[in-house]
Amino acid sequence: MFRSLRQRNLARGSLLFKRRKTMPSDILSAVLARIDADLDASLARLFHFLRIRSISTDPAYKDECIAAAHHVANDLAGIGFDAKVRPTGGHPVVLAKSGGARGPSVVFYGHYDVQPVDPVDLWDAPPFEPRVRELADGRKAIVARGASDDKGQLMTFVEAVRAWKAVTGSLPLSITMMIEGEEECGSKNLPAFVEANRSELKADLALVCDTGMWDPATPAITTSLRGLVYDEVKIHAANRDLHSGLYGGAAQNPIRVLAKILAAIHNENGRITIPGFYDGVQELPSDVRKQWQALEPALQALLGKVGLSVPAGEKDRLLIEQLSSRPTCDVNGIIGGYTGEGSKTVIPAEASAKVSFRLVEGQDPDTVRKAFRAFVRARLPADCRAEFLSHTGAPAIALDWTMPQLAAVRRALSEEWGRDTLLVGCGASIPIVADFKRLLGLDTLLVGFALDDDRVHSPNEKYDVTSFHKGTRSWARVLAALAA
Amino acid sequence: MFRSLRQRNLARGSLLFKRRKTMPSDILSAVLARIDADLDASLARLFHFLRIRSISTDPAYKDECIAAAHHVANDLAGIGFDAKVRPTGGHPVVLAKSGGARGPSVVFYGHYDVQPVDPVDLWDAPPFEPRVRELADGRKAIVARGASDDKGQLMTFVEAVRAWKAVTGSLPLSITMMIEGEEECGSKNLPAFVEANRSELKADLALVCDTGMWDPATPAITTSLRGLVYDEVKIHAANRDLHSGLYGGAAQNPIRVLAKILAAIHNENGRITIPGFYDGVQELPSDVRKQWQALEPALQALLGKVGLSVPAGEKDRLLIEQLSSRPTCDVNGIIGGYTGEGSKTVIPAEASAKVSFRLVEGQDPDTVRKAFRAFVRARLPADCRAEFLSHTGAPAIALDWTMPQLAAVRRALSEEWGRDTLLVGCGASIPIVADFKRLLGLDTLLVGFALDDDRVHSPNEKYDVTSFHKGTRSWARVLAALAA
Repeated sequence: MFRSLRQRNLARGSLLFKRRKTMPSDILSAVLARIDADLDASLARLFHFLRIRSISTDPAYKDECIAAAHHVANDLAGIGFDAKVRPTGGHPVVLAKSGGARGPSVVFYGHYDVQPVDPVDLWDAPPFEPRVRELADGRKAIVARGASDDKGQLMTFVEAVRAWKAVTGSLPLSITMMIEGEEECGSKNLPAFVEANRSELKADLALVCDTGMWDPATPAITTSLRGLVYDEVKIHAANRDLHSGLYGGAAQNPIRVLAKILAAIHNENGRITIPGFYDGVQELPSDVRKQWQALEPALQALLGKVGLSVPAGEKDRLLIEQLSSRPTCDVNGIIGGYTGEGSKTVIPAEASAKVSFRLVEGQDPDTVRKAFRAFVRARLPADCRAEFLSHTGAPAIALDWTMPQLAAVRRALSEEWGRDTLLVGCGASIPIVADFKRLLGLDTLLVGFALDDDRVHSPNEKYDVTSFHKGTRSWARVLAALAA
Repeated sequence: MFRSLRQRNLARGSLLFKRRKTMPSDILSAVLARIDADLDASLARLFHFLRIRSISTDPAYKDECIAAAHHVANDLAGIGFDAKVRPTGGHPVVLAKSGGARGPSVVFYGHYDVQPVDPVDLWDAPPFEPRVRELADGRKAIVARGASDDKGQLMTFVEAVRAWKAVTGSLPLSITMMIEGEEECGSKNLPAFVEANRSELKADLALVCDTGMWDPATPAITTSLRGLVYDEVKIHAANRDLHSGLYGGAAQNPIRVLAKILAAIHNENGRITIPGFYDGVQELPSDVRKQWQALEPALQALLGKVGLSVPAGEKDRLLIEQLSSRPTCDVNGIIGGYTGEGSKTVIPAEASAKVSFRLVEGQDPDTVRKAFRAFVRARLPADCRAEFLSHTGAPAIALDWTMPQLAAVRRALSEEWGRDTLLVGCGASIPIVADFKRLLGLDTLLVGFALDDDRVHSPNEKYDVTSFHKGTRSWARVLAALAA
C-alpha cells in the first residue's frame, strides 16, 4: 500500500475544488442502503480473506499466495464476473471481467499479497487472526496483516460492486479486475502480464485502491507518486568465516566495508553523494514552496506520532519536500556475521544490505541503479567483491490533474464524506500506474481510505471499520459518477 | 579455542631451546603403547561427546549443555576421578579431582561447550554427526562442530590420563580438572566459580589445551594472549517500523546511524579512532620488529589460505603485529530491518551490532568498553538512543617464559614430535588464564594441537587424527615430565 503524502498538487487542488451537490439517484440510494445492511457479512468475508497468509516475498508462503488468488477469483465469480487465476513467472494474477449495461469501462487494480509479519513478537495478537478492536479514541479497527494493505482496501471496491449487482442485477459500467500477488515484492511479472493481455485490459480509465485519506475525516485522491529502485548488495571478503582472535586486525571484515559504503551515501547535510543521483530533479517553484511552508506543522505532527522530532533528510529542504518531492535513499535491511543471542567472535565471509531509492520526476531508475552500483564498486577495498541483486525499478509519475474524470470522482467522494476531497502527492511508488500509462496509455485514479496510523508494513496493522464501510460506499458513488 | 599466532616470544623462544634427549621410562613407554592400542576406542568416545549439541551461547541448547557436563563428569568418574557437576549462574562446571601418587599438582582447564553452527548450509555434513574424512593431502581428520575447539583437544588430555590410570593404576601427579560450559559465550560465571572454589583449585600450575601447533609437524606452547572486550549496541529511532515510501527522506534510519558509527571506528589508515583506545599500548622494540619481518611471508600465506591478500589493519604495521601484538576492533555481527528473501520497503525502528576488541598488554577492558560507548553516544543524532549489552571483558596476558616447568614441557613435546617446540603468542583471548593468575596466583601452560586449517568457529570444523593421537601421547609425556 502506498499512503498519500501531501505534495505539489495539494495546494493547487484545494483551490481548484468547487463543491457541487449532486443528489444520489434512487438506485444509488438503494445500493448504499444495501452496503449498510450488509456490513457485518462484508466484514466476515474480509476476515476470511485476511486469514490467508499470502506473504509474497517469502517462498515459504507460495501455496498461500495461490490460495489467496483462488479465493479472490471465486468471490468475483460468485458476483457474476468471468474470473480466472492466470499464471505468471511468479505468483498468479486474478483477471475478472463483467460487462456493464452502459457507460465507460474501467480496469481496477489491487493486490492480494501482503508484507512479511516480522518482528512477529511485536504483534499484540497473531497477524493472521483478524479481529475488530476499539482504539483509544473510540474508533473501531480491523487488526491483521493486510487489513489495510491491500486486502481491506481491495474489498471496499469488491463490496461496492457486489452491492450494485445485488440491487440492480448489473453494473453501471464495464469493469475489469486485475488483482496481483507480487506488489509487496516488486511486481516483477506484472509488466509482462499487462503487455501480454493488452486487449483484455483495454479501458477508459484505471482505478487503484491502495492509497490513503488526508485524515480520518477528509478524503483524498493521489495524483503523483515517487518511483522506486530497490537493490541488494552483498560484500564478500574471505572465502570462509574467520575467528576474530586469529585473524582480527589483518583480515578484511565485510561488515566494516559495508558500513563504510553505506555511511558514505549521505553527507553531513543529508544529501545523497552518489554521482549523478540528482540529475534531472527539478527545483520546486518558489510560490509552491511558500504555500508548503504552511503545511509543516501537520507533517511535524506526523513525525511526532512515531516518536521522532527532527527531520533526518536534506537539511536545506522543508519536511514536506523530504517526504514527497525529493528523492531519497534508505537502507531497508542489513545482515552479517553472528546475530543470535550472546557473542561469537567471528569475522564473517560476507555481509549484505537491502538499499532502496525513492525517485521523483526526471530520474531514470536504470541510471540510478547503475550509479549506486558504481558507487559501491568504487569503494571496495582489496580482497572484496560486491554481488548485486535487482528488485523493483519504477519511475516516478505525475498524473494530469485536469483529466475530466477527476472532477467527477472528487465530487462523489466529497458527497460521501461531507468534506472537500484533497488532491495529494505520495512519497511512495505504485509501479503499475506507470505501466498502465506506458503500456496501455491509461490514466489512473488513485483513491484509498487508509490512514496514517494504519501501521502498514509494521506490526499490528489495522484498517478502520469506518474506512472499510464508508470506503465501500465511496466506491459505489464513484462507479455511479463515472457512469454518468 | 584460541589458536596460536606467532609473537614476540617466538623469536626468543627458538633461540632458547636446546634439545636434550630424555629417554622415556618403561612406564611411559607402556602408557604410550596403551594409547596407540586404544586409538579406535578413544575416537569412539570422542564421537559420542561430539554428538552432544552443547552450543552455549544459544539458550535453545541449554539442556544439551547440561548433558555435555554430565557426560564429561561420568567419563572422569569412570577413570577414577571424584567428579561433580557444579552449578553456576549459567551452564554448570565439571570439577573433578584425582590425587597422584607423588609430585606436584596441576589444574587442567577445558570447555565442553561449542560455537553455533550457522551458516549451517555451508557444512558438507551435519555438524553434530562426527566422521573421519580424508583431506586432499591425505591427512585424516575428524569433522564436527567442536572436533578441534575444544572437545577434541580436551579429550587428548582425558585420554592421556585414562592411559596412565590403565597402565599404572594411578597418576604421576595430582590433577584437578575444571571443565566449563561457557567459554564460547564469554565465561561470565567462571571468575566467581574460581573464587568460590579457591581451595579446591589449589595447584602448582595450570594446564590448558585450547591452542594450536605452529604447523602440522611442529609443536608450540602459547605464552601470550590478547584480551577481549565484547559489546553489543542497539540503536533505536522511531517507535515502530515505518514504510519507506511514507517516511523515507525524513525519518531517521537506525541502520544508517549504525553504519555511520561503525564506519567511523577505523580511519583511512586502519587505525582505531576511539579516543584513548591505544593508551598504555607499548611499541615493539626495534630489534624484535626486525626479526619479525622475516616471518611475514609465512603469515601472508595464512591470509592467502582464506582468500585474502592485503592486510586490512593498521597500514604502518607488520602483518604479524596486526595479528598478535596490536589491539583491534571487529564488528562480529550486524542486523536491522528486513533480512529475508526479496524486498520490503521498511525503515526499521532499531538496528544492532556486536562489536569486539582484541586487547594487548597495557589496555584495561573496562576503560575500552567505556570509551567505545562514549564514542557511540557522541555520534547519536536527534531522536536516536543507544542501548548496550556487555559480553566478555578480559585483559591481555603475557606469561613468564623463564618459568621452570616450561623447559620440561617443551622437551616432552619435542620428544613426541621430533621437532623443536616453539614458544608463540596468540592473537586471541583465554580469560581463564588471567583469572588463574589474578585469583589463584597460578601460571598457565597453554599446550594444544589445533592447526590453522581446523576451521574453528566456521563450517566444517575438523581436527586431524594425528593431532588427536599424538596430542594424547604428548600429554602422557607432559604428565611424566611435570612429575619428574
